[in-house]
Amino acid sequence: MTITLRAAVAGLALMGTSVSAQTTIEMTTAFGQNLPILGTAAVDFTDRLNAISNDIEIERYDPGKLVPTLEALDAVANGSVDAAYATSGYWQGKINSASLFAAVPFGPEAGEFLGWILYDDGAKYWQQMYDDAGYNVHAIPCGVIAPETSGWFKKEINTVEDLKGLNMRFFGLGAKAMDKLGVSTSLLAAGDIFPALERGAIDATEFSMPRIDARLGFHKIAKFNYFPGWHQPSTLFELLVNGDVWADLDETQQAQIETACLATITTNLAEGEATNYAAMVDNVENNGVTIKRWSPEMLAAFEGAWDEVVGELAADDPFFQEVWADLQDYREGYKTWSTIYLPRN
Amino acid sequence: MTITLRAAVAGLALMGTSVSAQTTIEMTTAFGQNLPILGTAAVDFTDRLNAISNDIEIERYDPGKLVPTLEALDAVANGSVDAAYATSGYWQGKINSASLFAAVPFGPEAGEFLGWILYDDGAKYWQQMYDDAGYNVHAIPCGVIAPETSGWFKKEINTVEDLKGLNMRFFGLGAKAMDKLGVSTSLLAAGDIFPALERGAIDATEFSMPRIDARLGFHKIAKFNYFPGWHQPSTLFELLVNGDVWADLDETQQAQIETACLATITTNLAEGEATNYAAMVDNVENNGVTIKRWSPEMLAAFEGAWDEVVGELAADDPFFQEVWADLQDYREGYKTWSTIYLPRN
Repeated sequence: MTITLRAAVAGLALMGTSVSAQTTIEMTTAFGQNLPILGTAAVDFTDRLNAISNDIEIERYDPGKLVPTLEALDAVANGSVDAAYATSGYWQGKINSASLFAAVPFGPEAGEFLGWILYDDGAKYWQQMYDDAGYNVHAIPCGVIAPETSGWFKKEINTVEDLKGLNMRFFGLGAKAMDKLGVSTSLLAAGDIFPALERGAIDATEFSMPRIDARLGFHKIAKFNYFPGWHQPSTLFELLVNGDVWADLDETQQAQIETACLATITTNLAEGEATNYAAMVDNVENNGVTIKRWSPEMLAAFEGAWDEVVGELAADDPFFQEVWADLQDYREGYKTWSTIYLPRN
Repeated sequence: MTITLRAAVAGLALMGTSVSAQTTIEMTTAFGQNLPILGTAAVDFTDRLNAISNDIEIERYDPGKLVPTLEALDAVANGSVDAAYATSGYWQGKINSASLFAAVPFGPEAGEFLGWILYDDGAKYWQQMYDDAGYNVHAIPCGVIAPETSGWFKKEINTVEDLKGLNMRFFGLGAKAMDKLGVSTSLLAAGDIFPALERGAIDATEFSMPRIDARLGFHKIAKFNYFPGWHQPSTLFELLVNGDVWADLDETQQAQIETACLATITTNLAEGEATNYAAMVDNVENNGVTIKRWSPEMLAAFEGAWDEVVGELAADDPFFQEVWADLQDYREGYKTWSTIYLPRN
């Protein structure tokens, strides 16, 4: 180890015009810090960034403190907020292809998804989506979680007929597939779900992984917890930074943010993998929950509905079609590898 | 965004005893930068660390430039080298449990492994292993790759009988299982494998993933490429830093190194997932390679041999036994989650 003294240089800089400055970035979040993994990821990211940087600091705000969660994209783009830790799936109402960078039904698991994002065309399209839609934001992949559960139902579901007429909270592209099967879906924020279940406004809900859902208390009302989470085999999270704010950062600051985000992807994934099974055991042993696995027929129905949805979205939107084709190409190649490379297959 | 000027504080520090200093850490590596993923991970890690830090710098050296690869642990511990980017599996000859923090036959894939390391007991045991064995090093998880291939053989292998008497390059704990089946294994460094295959000193070899193996040219001599890689469903890499060097770093510098390592885990995994299938296709279409899948009988034979090896290692070594039991406990719980949570099951 060698120590190089830089006092002389630093001293000269101080006597000149350059001064040491700290940039503070105000960041809103899409998930409360009371939610493990989903909400604590933004806390971990913030702590990590602040720990590695002496000249940039992030001030993290809980959802709704700076701006309503579903308005965060616009707020960051117009500069009223510097940054947002969110998932692009929340902008599905504004941009058709948004959920392709969040969670794809019957889509890739975390490793395969990250490969497309970081070493294929994913990240390029992710940014292009915002650019083409006129949002002045810089998008950085900043988290990923293991698969979700398929949801919580008040009654057992054995056939597609049982789904018809249900009111259900549902996120992203999977919601469109559920709609095809006769479910009436709505996107409620985390805190609004339990009250809606309790007063009967909804009959079922999906939100996230068992450990996270446990915090929201769904098991108290909806006793059937279904797997697998076909609608979200993995879910990506993003850091959106206002384009001008990003351009004003120097290369070191930009690298610090990107690196803290890549680190958060690792910890986010690992925490989800390590800590969910305890919640499942607790649900069965202490909360009276029945864990159910969808039958092959039900999964085929979900997949069929999803194929219809994709066809419609691609037909109406050339950019969706381009990104979807690229992802399918990548997945087709990946199969060469994944279908033979593991003892599990 | 707000900018806080800190010139006054910085100026005072300069007038006092504190000076701005840059710490340079000399780091040896276990894999050459000519090897994609495996070798470029250390380059990526170094570039990233140097990009986010103004007061610490890593000088990366190719394998053998500072110290022979298999002597790196001792060199870092005694301070003759500041740090090493390596895999603990290379110290298997010195420490029985070393490979439990590198690659476990029939063990966890990347996500499950990272969960044990980062959110269960893995990292704690990893450090304890070095402490108990008297090595003055600080160990940081710093990379992970997707599954390897099971290896390259000059002739087709259909039965355990076909394995008997083969000379094969093999890494880590899997080598001990192969030995049980009558294979004579040796651990050759990357550059020594092709010449050994060519002159007939070995009949077969495993090294890493298809894209990496392609660079080493095994396909020119051994035309049968076997899957799945039961011996390394995922492989972890470590950054070893001399204990005194680590203690001399301040908290920001330590956080920068840890964060750059966590970021490298993400990129390392993603690159392996995204870029291996092209090498498999190329091998079949252009290199005359036959891709083979082990029969269930052969996989059962490998697993049986592995179970014997584990039994012996645990019987002889209380620490191995403790870590192994902990990992098995974790994996038993993880099954509750993994056997139901994905459409693939």
